[in-house]
Amino acid sequence: MHNLLSTDDVDAFPEFLKTAAAFKKNPYTEETLGRRKTLVLLFFNPSLRTRVSTQKAAYNLGMNVILLNVSQAWGIEFEDGTVMNLDTAEHVREAAAVISQYADLIGIRTFPGLKDRALDYQDRVLQQFARYTTVPIVNMESATVHPLQGLTDVFTIEAHKRIARPKVVLSWAPHPRALPQAVANSFLAAAGRMDYELVLTHPPGYALSEQFSRYATIEHDQQKAFAGADFIYAKNWSSYESYGEILSTDPKWMITAEKMQSTNKAKFMHCLPVRRNVVVEDAVLDSPASLVIEQAANRTVIAQTVLSKLLKSPTGCNN
Amino acid sequence: MHNLLSTDDVDAFPEFLKTAAAFKKNPYTEETLGRRKTLVLLFFNPSLRTRVSTQKAAYNLGMNVILLNVSQAWGIEFEDGTVMNLDTAEHVREAAAVISQYADLIGIRTFPGLKDRALDYQDRVLQQFARYTTVPIVNMESATVHPLQGLTDVFTIEAHKRIARPKVVLSWAPHPRALPQAVANSFLAAAGRMDYELVLTHPPGYALSEQFSRYATIEHDQQKAFAGADFIYAKNWSSYESYGEILSTDPKWMITAEKMQSTNKAKFMHCLPVRRNVVVEDAVLDSPASLVIEQAANRTVIAQTVLSKLLKSPTGCNN
Amino acid sequence: MHNLLSTDDVDAFPEFLKTAAAFKKNPYTEETLGRRKTLVLLFFNPSLRTRVSTQKAAYNLGMNVILLNVSQAWGIEFEDGTVMNLDTAEHVREAAAVISQYADLIGIRTFPGLKDRALDYQDRVLQQFARYTTVPIVNMESATVHPLQGLTDVFTIEAHKRIARPKVVLSWAPHPRALPQAVANSFLAAAGRMDYELVLTHPPGYALSEQFSRYATIEHDQQKAFAGADFIYAKNWSSYESYGEILSTDPKWMITAEKMQSTNKAKFMHCLPVRRNVVVEDAVLDSPASLVIEQAANRTVIAQTVLSKLLKSPTGCNN
Repeated sequence: MHNLLSTDDVDAFPEFLKTAAAFKKNPYTEETLGRRKTLVLLFFNPSLRTRVSTQKAAYNLGMNVILLNVSQAWGIEFEDGTVMNLDTAEHVREAAAVISQYADLIGIRTFPGLKDRALDYQDRVLQQFARYTTVPIVNMESATVHPLQGLTDVFTIEAHKRIARPKVVLSWAPHPRALPQAVANSFLAAAGRMDYELVLTHPPGYALSEQFSRYATIEHDQQKAFAGADFIYAKNWSSYESYGEILSTDPKWMITAEKMQSTNKAKFMHCLPVRRNVVVEDAVLDSPASLVIEQAANRTVIAQTVLSKLLKSPTGCNN
Repeated sequence: MHNLLSTDDVDAFPEFLKTAAAFKKNPYTEETLGRRKTLVLLFFNPSLRTRVSTQKAAYNLGMNVILLNVSQAWGIEFEDGTVMNLDTAEHVREAAAVISQYADLIGIRTFPGLKDRALDYQDRVLQQFARYTTVPIVNMESATVHPLQGLTDVFTIEAHKRIARPKVVLSWAPHPRALPQAVANSFLAAAGRMDYELVLTHPPGYALSEQFSRYATIEHDQQKAFAGADFIYAKNWSSYESYGEILSTDPKWMITAEKMQSTNKAKFMHCLPVRRNVVVEDAVLDSPASLVIEQAANRTVIAQTVLSKLLKSPTGCNN
Repeated sequence: MHNLLSTDDVDAFPEFLKTAAAFKKNPYTEETLGRRKTLVLLFFNPSLRTRVSTQKAAYNLGMNVILLNVSQAWGIEFEDGTVMNLDTAEHVREAAAVISQYADLIGIRTFPGLKDRALDYQDRVLQQFARYTTVPIVNMESATVHPLQGLTDVFTIEAHKRIARPKVVLSWAPHPRALPQAVANSFLAAAGRMDYELVLTHPPGYALSEQFSRYATIEHDQQKAFAGADFIYAKNWSSYESYGEILSTDPKWMITAEKMQSTNKAKFMHCLPVRRNVVVEDAVLDSPASLVIEQAANRTVIAQTVLSKLLKSPTGCNN
């Protein structure tokens, strides 16, 4: 693995998940691997659990961590050939090359604008940094994908599945704000590589990019989708078709205890933060079926697995 | 000690102060105690010396430290049963449980609004986090108390007292802005457990909550209060009675060199930051009687003592 | 070396540059020197590469690093005798003394206002902190000088010079915003102590303070200045004479590939961030002649050399 830009960068899922399971059991088996190594985390957008879990993962490996909040103060130019006499103060060519001088690994978080689909789905900030840095990059959620989350979700399902081929349902749920599609995209991309009966359910207008939805069977009737499910993964996203728009906030799509009863005693999953009684009822979140806190804990495990793989990459790292 | 929410959480003051004295002498006697342990510091409000001294204390114990500035960006819901379709994005139940996955100890700073006394004195943010976290909590100044400061103040007095039962005076002093009562409250709660002649002096309308003022004799005449004092602790607070209001900025309450002459060569104390020539004259602050810089240095010692106790708590910490 | 306020604090350049070269070869020869030592970095203004490179340098020496962003929230009073009943909440006497309790070394960044030349050139924030702290200070760019950059630049030239006495040209270049003179000043002060043919070229009105320009021959004709040069260092600064003003944005002063042809295959230098096709053409920056990324990498080397010297200073450091 040379970078973690998307879940596709994980070549061998079974081996990756096995390494993760070993780190979960004992986080300190490689606590000198990252000695003298520095992880620089670049935030174009705020982060809480991704930042903290990645930072903790790095410490478990003995790395140093340097945080960089990239706000408006540091306007980065992404176009080539521009006369930079306006708002941008540094070209990504220099920015990426310079940070590479101080880092052995670089993490990047950058959200979509949710205005221009073609632009967002180029994932330009991530891709340009990946192009001009000379050290491996970890995607800490980009405009279109959130691989650390997707890998975490699959890892969590693996620990809780009771049958060889569980029915796993990704259900859209309501939310008052326009959210990215990244978590849903990466969940599908990761779960799609497992031997799951993967079902996607959402209201009209909420189809995801075919690049990701192709991994799942689409069932527009949420009730049918839930029938016999082993895992219900709830997530809101704004429309991909009517890009960035909120087409529905219909509470009928909220995950309720009643709906959970039609499942096969399904576990409930969400990446957090979650709006209670909007996305999901208290009764579900506070029930033993909820895996959300374990998912959050597993973020550290997956981040550590990724950092470890990248530190060991023959082409990666400065020295 | 399972948490440090208030100075009351310190069971045995003499033993606590003895441990602190040992750390002051040699800060590195437990420099591997915090190995593989992470302290997450949550700031709902800004902090300078509390943050830096606590961070340094953690490093002295070999801990990792992760800082989290919790601004408006992360609206936390504290009410149960709410339909979270407005400004709050995460419930304290999840927020506290999630951070507990990444932390072995959690520090929290949260100021009062100074508008609604009943609400502030519930100390809701602190109490709710203490309720829903699964690891020990350290109060880095909450709406009503600042135990790390109160403990520091007593520790500093102990090092400088020249008689068995010193006269210790907490004097209100003027300030142009409305400040919390937390420092004064915790000073009284901590000093009240020592064998001091504890006197509280303030203008009309500045009585503190009886929960804290009961530890002291109240003397409204500042001049009488100062007579024969061994320690003068100056601090401004806004009114508890006319909650959050500034009732006086009368410079007659400023601590002056002249007033200090009626004391028993009293030491001068303040938690800092201090406004010169408003709270206290230059002549006092720049005299050898001033302990303010030593108080600041002792913040590290007390934070280290608290972190050490919590790391050793049988019920505390993740593993 | 007791402080690094300016390049003048480096007594013995040859020995300093030799130590730096050794650190560049192996950054880990002193990785326990900073054990139990804390570097506090104070930012009155934002910083990217200075912060990250200094932080990394400290980690290479085994130090702990604590960052303090000093924004408006912490108004510091610099005047003595003031009645502090307005915007300032803490006097530099306390602020500096308190931070000294937590730090073994203190780094400070503070920009000029570019309104009042006399005030800026007092470099008050830096000088006042240097006066009231009890531990060594590192200037991470002040109102008038940027010694870490100046030392880096000389170190970089030394590694690339092909003749004993190279011709080194500092050329003003256009920029849409008013920038400080600090980088140019420190470059002249540092390069002026080397055996270089040092030439300074700039448009009318852009003369630097005589304190710094005296190290160089001034040649107003950029073309003449470039003739036979071994190093071209490009940098914008706002006017020192018409203080803080932008007198010219004339693109004729941009560094171009064509102009580089009149040099002696000169290397191109800039401290970054650089505005492409405003300060310098893409063709120069993307050519093998450009040393800008190596300069950025050398920032760590120089910061490490300075921190190491200060840690070893007999009068420095708390214990």
